Amino acid sequence: MENPKLKVFIPFFYLVWSDDLLTQKEFVTLQGFIGSQNWLSPKEQQLLLSNVDITSPPSRKQLIDWKTEIEKSSITHSSVKSLFALSLLLSKNDETIKGLETIFTKLESDLGISGSEAIVHFKTAKVTFTSGQQAASTFDTEKLTQFLDGKQAPIIKKVKSIVSRPEFAYETSTNTKVYREKVYDWCRILAKENLGNMAYPTAYGGGGSFADYFAIMETLSYYDLSLVIKFGVQFGLWGMSIQSLGTEKHYDKYLKDIGSFKLPGCFAMTETHHGSNVKGIETTATYNHKEQTFSIHTPNDKAQKEYIGNAASHGRMATVFAKLIIEDHDYGVNAFIVPIRDANGKSLKGITIEDCGLKMGLNGVDNGTLHFNHVVIPKENMLDRFASINAEGKFESPIPSDNRRFFTMLGTLVGGRIGIPRSALSAAKSGLTIAIKYGDQRRQFGPEGGSEVPILNYRIHQRRLLPGLAKTYGLHFALQYLTHRFIHKKENEMPDIEALAAGMKAYTTWSTRDILQECREACGGKGYLSENRIGALKNDTEIYTTFEGDNTVLMQLVAKNRLSEFRKTFGEMDAFDKINYVFESAKTAITEKNPIITRKTDEDHLLDGTFHLQAFQYRENATVTAVAKRLKKLIDSGLEPYDAYNVVQHQMIDVAQAYLERVILEQFQIALTSVKDKNTKAVLEQLYQLYALSQIEKNKSWYLEDEYMEPVKTKAIRKMVNQLCWNIRPDAVALVNAFDIPDNCLGAPIVLFPI
Amino acid sequence: MENPKLKVFIPFFYLVWSDDLLTQKEFVTLQGFIGSQNWLSPKEQQLLLSNVDITSPPSRKQLIDWKTEIEKSSITHSSVKSLFALSLLLSKNDETIKGLETIFTKLESDLGISGSEAIVHFKTAKVTFTSGQQAASTFDTEKLTQFLDGKQAPIIKKVKSIVSRPEFAYETSTNTKVYREKVYDWCRILAKENLGNMAYPTAYGGGGSFADYFAIMETLSYYDLSLVIKFGVQFGLWGMSIQSLGTEKHYDKYLKDIGSFKLPGCFAMTETHHGSNVKGIETTATYNHKEQTFSIHTPNDKAQKEYIGNAASHGRMATVFAKLIIEDHDYGVNAFIVPIRDANGKSLKGITIEDCGLKMGLNGVDNGTLHFNHVVIPKENMLDRFASINAEGKFESPIPSDNRRFFTMLGTLVGGRIGIPRSALSAAKSGLTIAIKYGDQRRQFGPEGGSEVPILNYRIHQRRLLPGLAKTYGLHFALQYLTHRFIHKKENEMPDIEALAAGMKAYTTWSTRDILQECREACGGKGYLSENRIGALKNDTEIYTTFEGDNTVLMQLVAKNRLSEFRKTFGEMDAFDKINYVFESAKTAITEKNPIITRKTDEDHLLDGTFHLQAFQYRENATVTAVAKRLKKLIDSGLEPYDAYNVVQHQMIDVAQAYLERVILEQFQIALTSVKDKNTKAVLEQLYQLYALSQIEKNKSWYLEDEYMEPVKTKAIRKMVNQLCWNIRPDAVALVNAFDIPDNCLGAPIVLFPI
Repeated sequence: MENPKLKVFIPFFYLVWSDDLLTQKEFVTLQGFIGSQNWLSPKEQQLLLSNVDITSPPSRKQLIDWKTEIEKSSITHSSVKSLFALSLLLSKNDETIKGLETIFTKLESDLGISGSEAIVHFKTAKVTFTSGQQAASTFDTEKLTQFLDGKQAPIIKKVKSIVSRPEFAYETSTNTKVYREKVYDWCRILAKENLGNMAYPTAYGGGGSFADYFAIMETLSYYDLSLVIKFGVQFGLWGMSIQSLGTEKHYDKYLKDIGSFKLPGCFAMTETHHGSNVKGIETTATYNHKEQTFSIHTPNDKAQKEYIGNAASHGRMATVFAKLIIEDHDYGVNAFIVPIRDANGKSLKGITIEDCGLKMGLNGVDNGTLHFNHVVIPKENMLDRFASINAEGKFESPIPSDNRRFFTMLGTLVGGRIGIPRSALSAAKSGLTIAIKYGDQRRQFGPEGGSEVPILNYRIHQRRLLPGLAKTYGLHFALQYLTHRFIHKKENEMPDIEALAAGMKAYTTWSTRDILQECREACGGKGYLSENRIGALKNDTEIYTTFEGDNTVLMQLVAKNRLSEFRKTFGEMDAFDKINYVFESAKTAITEKNPIITRKTDEDHLLDGTFHLQAFQYRENATVTAVAKRLKKLIDSGLEPYDAYNVVQHQMIDVAQAYLERVILEQFQIALTSVKDKNTKAVLEQLYQLYALSQIEKNKSWYLEDEYMEPVKTKAIRKMVNQLCWNIRPDAVALVNAFDIPDNCLGAPIVLFPI
Repeated sequence: MENPKLKVFIPFFYLVWSDDLLTQKEFVTLQGFIGSQNWLSPKEQQLLLSNVDITSPPSRKQLIDWKTEIEKSSITHSSVKSLFALSLLLSKNDETIKGLETIFTKLESDLGISGSEAIVHFKTAKVTFTSGQQAASTFDTEKLTQFLDGKQAPIIKKVKSIVSRPEFAYETSTNTKVYREKVYDWCRILAKENLGNMAYPTAYGGGGSFADYFAIMETLSYYDLSLVIKFGVQFGLWGMSIQSLGTEKHYDKYLKDIGSFKLPGCFAMTETHHGSNVKGIETTATYNHKEQTFSIHTPNDKAQKEYIGNAASHGRMATVFAKLIIEDHDYGVNAFIVPIRDANGKSLKGITIEDCGLKMGLNGVDNGTLHFNHVVIPKENMLDRFASINAEGKFESPIPSDNRRFFTMLGTLVGGRIGIPRSALSAAKSGLTIAIKYGDQRRQFGPEGGSEVPILNYRIHQRRLLPGLAKTYGLHFALQYLTHRFIHKKENEMPDIEALAAGMKAYTTWSTRDILQECREACGGKGYLSENRIGALKNDTEIYTTFEGDNTVLMQLVAKNRLSEFRKTFGEMDAFDKINYVFESAKTAITEKNPIITRKTDEDHLLDGTFHLQAFQYRENATVTAVAKRLKKLIDSGLEPYDAYNVVQHQMIDVAQAYLERVILEQFQIALTSVKDKNTKAVLEQLYQLYALSQIEKNKSWYLEDEYMEPVKTKAIRKMVNQLCWNIRPDAVALVNAFDIPDNCLGAPIVLFPI
């Protein structure tokens, strides 16, 4: 094919024979085209057609020759932007060909080829924007670490140093017994370092610091999560049940031995048939005034205590929740200290202990079932802070309502709902550290002829990981706020703090679940290997969404609290205030929902914290108002309230989410105001914006349905989320480095020792 | 408080002392109220105030007396719908009280109490709608099972009977070695039953049926998934690579021994640094014409074969993908049979095998790495269906393009992308069977004073599980369609079938991931125990989203195929057709996007299959058109195509999803038309509607952004989804029973032996 005029077909020949998306049909199209060109002689047509005969393909060498010929032409000229431009070059700017642009462009279109894309096959590799991205920190990670750790920096440092010792090498045995004993040994070491009793009163040898206790839980969670849960069961649940529900005599007798791990114990609340609905437990504690004893009894199998940590192997005593029975009267749920094993580890008389067996995760924790057959304990074993039996054998309590007393008791145990989300968040931080560092190193695919590109440069990969990173930072600040409120709580704030803790527990553990799922997939096959630890992080935290209260149930509770707060606020207003309230709401609607705002898409507006806060608050108020109205309508129409609540369950989840997301946003904003270092502030600000906008994006159907935003705005937000991901990507590695997770805790060879 | 007039306060006293949502503030409100009522004498006020003194609570007995007094009144009267109505009754319809309705209603409001809800505390339990729901099948499950199994019923029955034998009891050891040997033994049994060679040609002792082979994979997947993957590696990947890429001489030599499991083998494609981007593999096969041999070599650690099933323990040979080098020229990726172990299981010279170690799941499969150090194999070991070396030592192939040849080779292996999603779907069916049956039995919470209610009666629980059930049915039909197309494929349909298989693999495995996550959480703590098998189902299928092609990468490929199809369709139209196309699109927009349709919410319309199909098709076409336009714009503006594709990655996922969801919807509709039995059809129709509407709900932000639907319509769809869940709930247990999973496979004590 020496005739330059005929060379115009070379790019087409090359493409139909090499592109895997073109099929038989396209051959026919090209044949038809050649046959219909009357500027070609029949002989020329014949020659050309011989190159597109599907029964007689060209040789492999022919294909390479065509490509070489194309490459020899001045293809790198930036002016060459279509197949036709290339054809023209190959024809040496033949005059006949010049006039054929229209029909050749139609041919491209008929073949379904995008000329500007196809041309890339023939260009030498160019530097692309995508290839150019790489890790490059704009700030000092140490400063950010200091900011995150705050006043707890010394205890965090201490814990990291302890779990970096050789005796804390990860246990890799799949034998449950071996693993449990190792976790037991680790617990003893931590107790010896006075970490277990950190929250107990100094008068009983404790550290007297809840803030440090939670920081310990959080930091240990970079390490083995079975250890964290065992630690939490022993020092948190078991020890704290004594501290919160008992009185001096109990502190004196037990706290020191619990804190030193000399007395391993259990927190026996959940029963097989009463998990989330704890009020319904059936275990009984029957008082015998003559003997001054209680008899603890499991009336049926459904009432056995289940999933009890420390029960299957090590526990010596248990705080058992049971219905108190005095002279055949039921006085509601109370708590009792019940010895379950002797010093040799043998079950005591009347106690049947079974092992829960293998679990999805946390197999270093010895969960078991407890079954009591008329087990007798002395009267002083009743934890009597909120209720007691007097010398006459009569029930006494400062809280007359059994219901309210029970919830008051539970309220004192709310610390568990702070420790768990903080532990979950550490797991998310570990997962993100592994996945983001791997994404920065792992290369796959690349521009035609260029080298492969780090997968974190791909937009979809950024979208998988970076919004989760932003949310994790937001949750960090929100959990610090929750901890602060808990430590400085006043009596009348308890309902709010309990609701916030319940909500943050649910929201954070679900967030961790989703983040770790993305991390696993983002690490591909490597993420599936146990050595890279994402599997353990996922499986260990899997139950976090269930224990300490099932998330779905907790979210309903949070929503009920919001509903009650809403009714109180609205109820307390006088007529004038109410008119004002309605007016203000209308005004908000006017200022926020006018067509200029609902369609506003300029960058300054989209990145503006006031816009975010208004949008989050608006959603929070609107969802709770909507549920309140709907409930009223349903009940007024004759539905039982129980049924009415069932109908709106789905909306209740929205109410709780909207509330929690507003709190997180607010705390992220407040945290930003206290960052001193300019560069740290700049990167956190972008991360904050990514959190705010990716949450709005997640909820965009709600905003669109409510007409708070118009499509043009939600589309602009989606683009901005993409842009923020792209902007943050170079700092992403530094942002996970700021979590400062010790290498031996991270323990993932894919990032520590990449091939 | 004998004065009936004063008794109006009893309900308020009871509530402030017993409700856990009321705090100190509310006491002040109530005190203020009492103090300001001038119809009360100062003495009466004093008496009343003594009952709301926070420092001096009433006795527990007092609280009970109040409640008893309230219950003695005629509270059950349906007329009693507010606290005031109750107060009036207690006052014996006192004339003074009658006039106080307004101020008492305000008091309720000030306290944030919803009277109609609070009243429930005092009513005796009533039958609620929520309590009333229970399992009650409206159809014959056997007929549905027959319909699902279709022509494969006999082989499905056979497989179920085999895996129900005693030797197929689940292996519970956590010792990997023990588990692997057990899986190996199971594979031998299945081979002996002629299940392994089902898809091989009858001329080589096989069953000659792909349809039966896939049904075997699917049915085995109700049982142990390590077995399924080992089975798939041996008979599918290893055996099928010989069948698809080799020629007669290879069939003669190997197929029989592979089918009988006498010759365990591997499929060695993936390399450590080349997972999804297989074209980039670096292993070489260098041809030596003089010796008539190839030398297989791993040039560096990054190029070792990784995650190779059957490699760590049992494999004797492997199909190795390597770049063919002849006289220093690279002829692209080809496949070679390489012996790796001798008959005693010892690695052969030059072969280094390492164990991938413990994984999140599938620990019954012996995944390993393979490293070749100049391993010499005879010339005939090249699988030479698509390329060969002639007697002169020259390369020959009917497909000149290395690229196209490689994708043709991959195309013949597409069966793996059918077996995997069908296996995943079985896992989802197992999870749903466990979770739905448990939800039907497990009771938790209930109406005030009534008994606890099955958790599947809660709307939020229905929402968690039933849309997933509907989707699973839809996927069942869509995967049958994919299988049918694969079995009856014609050459020019291959690109479409490959895209469909890639897409269905990604879509189904992600769906299974989400469904099993919901199932685990829906079973609470019981779902976390290994004995109930959800953990194994989750962890074993976790890697399904990665192997046989990373889902995210596959979805990009699907979208590229759709884009190419779109361009061809559009390109092939002549000018007149194009005008017509634009006109038709506009007409569609006119008929579907006119304000009457976008706002239409009547039940007939929402449940109408034509509406669904139009909505799904519209989204499919609109997303692909949008991406095509955006790509053109980006490239025209000077962006490299590689960068442009990166920018639209997120939208590409939408394109692929919209396409797959349309296919699934269509196949669900087609399946419905062939159901004979009336009752079966009725229940499937509801399930179909739930699938259609819950997908639209999932995508509603897209429909709202596009203005294809208005908020009033998407809200109506949300309600309809809730309603359909509620309607299907009684049939839910029967619908999972229709999967007909043998009890010993299901193996979950929570549903087989509930306490």
